[in-house]
Amino acid sequence: MKVALDAMGGDHAPAVNIGGAIDALRYYPKMQHLYLVGIKSVLEEECRRQGLDLNDPRVSIVDAPEVIGMAEPGAKTVRKKKNSSINIAMDMVKDGRADAFVSAGNTGGAVAAATLKLRTLPGVDRAGIASALPNEYGICHILDAGANPEAKPEHLVAYAVMGTAFARGVLGVKEPKVGLMSNGEEDEKGTTFTKEAFKLLKQTPGINFVGNVEGRDLFESELDVVLCDGFVGNVMLKSIEATAKAVSKWLKTEIKGNPLRIAGAMLAQGAFRALKEKSSYETYGGSPLLGVNGVVIIAHGSSTALAVRNAIRVGLETVETGVNPRIEAALAAIHPSAPVEAATVTV
Amino acid sequence: MKVALDAMGGDHAPAVNIGGAIDALRYYPKMQHLYLVGIKSVLEEECRRQGLDLNDPRVSIVDAPEVIGMAEPGAKTVRKKKNSSINIAMDMVKDGRADAFVSAGNTGGAVAAATLKLRTLPGVDRAGIASALPNEYGICHILDAGANPEAKPEHLVAYAVMGTAFARGVLGVKEPKVGLMSNGEEDEKGTTFTKEAFKLLKQTPGINFVGNVEGRDLFESELDVVLCDGFVGNVMLKSIEATAKAVSKWLKTEIKGNPLRIAGAMLAQGAFRALKEKSSYETYGGSPLLGVNGVVIIAHGSSTALAVRNAIRVGLETVETGVNPRIEAALAAIHPSAPVEAATVTV
Repeated sequence: MKVALDAMGGDHAPAVNIGGAIDALRYYPKMQHLYLVGIKSVLEEECRRQGLDLNDPRVSIVDAPEVIGMAEPGAKTVRKKKNSSINIAMDMVKDGRADAFVSAGNTGGAVAAATLKLRTLPGVDRAGIASALPNEYGICHILDAGANPEAKPEHLVAYAVMGTAFARGVLGVKEPKVGLMSNGEEDEKGTTFTKEAFKLLKQTPGINFVGNVEGRDLFESELDVVLCDGFVGNVMLKSIEATAKAVSKWLKTEIKGNPLRIAGAMLAQGAFRALKEKSSYETYGGSPLLGVNGVVIIAHGSSTALAVRNAIRVGLETVETGVNPRIEAALAAIHPSAPVEAATVTV
Repeated sequence: MKVALDAMGGDHAPAVNIGGAIDALRYYPKMQHLYLVGIKSVLEEECRRQGLDLNDPRVSIVDAPEVIGMAEPGAKTVRKKKNSSINIAMDMVKDGRADAFVSAGNTGGAVAAATLKLRTLPGVDRAGIASALPNEYGICHILDAGANPEAKPEHLVAYAVMGTAFARGVLGVKEPKVGLMSNGEEDEKGTTFTKEAFKLLKQTPGINFVGNVEGRDLFESELDVVLCDGFVGNVMLKSIEATAKAVSKWLKTEIKGNPLRIAGAMLAQGAFRALKEKSSYETYGGSPLLGVNGVVIIAHGSSTALAVRNAIRVGLETVETGVNPRIEAALAAIHPSAPVEAATVTV
């Protein structure tokens, strides 16, 4: 498997991308080649600094003279900066030179480039980002985390099918439980949008739809996929991240106010470390953009080297377990009118 | 000031309501009378058990033979159970026997009863719940927390005005900062709904609109009011509460796995306690339902006695600082076509 890494993407680029690349080359022998896409001179300098040997036949730099900044309007900039690392790395997936695209860069840019260049899979109207959230039972994916802020009810049906395929493939969950985010667990709760989605999901074959869920279910229930429009998913995930950060910060402030507490916190620090690891996006690394005709992994903008490495891992696993063929087969079974080539894929 | 307390409302009713009543009678001398509304025999028994002296001239029981359960569909049940504690307590506000309604009961029921019986204020189309969230600078209110799941952009304008009046009155903030929850801070971010609301809010006089905000701003920015539709507010608040709970729980699990950590946690336990107090809804107590013609405070379903007591305090402060006259005056200034009696209110 070959990976195209947007080496200029993210708040801490290119350092974390090169750091992540070094570890990925060491730990993932199944990765046959890693393309570092970005400004050649900058990447060469960073590789030298971190000791990434460019004579290694498994790695090479692909020059992309332009960069899409984190704060730029992604979709617009992708159309302007044809030679940006996002566009050039996506082209490599499009023409088969790479099997997966990985970026911690501008999310809007990556989504737009993926949609424009790779197009959606047969039966998929809009792509969605599946973002991992750890819970008591494992990992729950929020879908969509922001690719499609104004989703239609039928988009959520495709998300349910795609999330199920991803959880089966990459996470090995046999019958992934799919919930619909709502303002209460009762069947009749929700808006016109969620009620219509609820009705459609109830009728969708091949998914294990468990009904409406709410905030606490994200952590306390055995759920694999939680569906919502991209606006709600984005707001919810950012609020969750901010809450975890605020709770830790307040606790640290309280602890620092008193020497006994400081001593206590030192004794208990292993617990804080374990919590951070369990709850950090670094551990999960990247969120797949599901529904495009290619493997696209979007990592957190503030990714560390560990997060980039894990995003590469998610990319490899998504390719290896055939998530996209699974999605095509599942959607073809639901929409028999979908193109024949999709229906004949076996998984 | 006189308060009508739905003494049968909440997961732990009537115990927490009577407990909260006892403390409110002790700590809030400005409260001239507290009506305990509910099944008379049940309340008498609970008052006896907790030592609430029913010979106290400041307190009395108002019999309401029916109860609306927490899991019942609120809006429907309010129409059926005419003699429920929610309906009878709301009637007392309607006919002026009480100045404020307080309930930890069925939220949908309380909102429906308030809207049906009290009606909305002139210039208000839909009421909204303002829910308190502690941040580094004080308290930020999320508006709407769930009364109006499918809000229209113009509803958010009224929410901005009402939230400003509440923050000025009850919290004493001179120029409350009002943000619009979106999927990014840039002006152009959002959905059709939030973009239209953004445009209207920019043009609204008398509010300090600071633009789009996102999750982290809830905790790290100096914000007083954050606007969203009731679906997003509800999902967001429940996710935030669940995250804080999950983080604490995981930390405890990690601590229990190791004797040194247990010792450390004991030394640092004051910090955990302080954090719990800072982040708990008990401290804030109740969320005002803004926009109805009367003071209505909605407390968390799992309220403790402390939360009920604080909900009563919020009710008293909302009456005392004239939040509703402030709202009427502010809206009358924006909509000169509103009824004359609203425009002549001075605050």
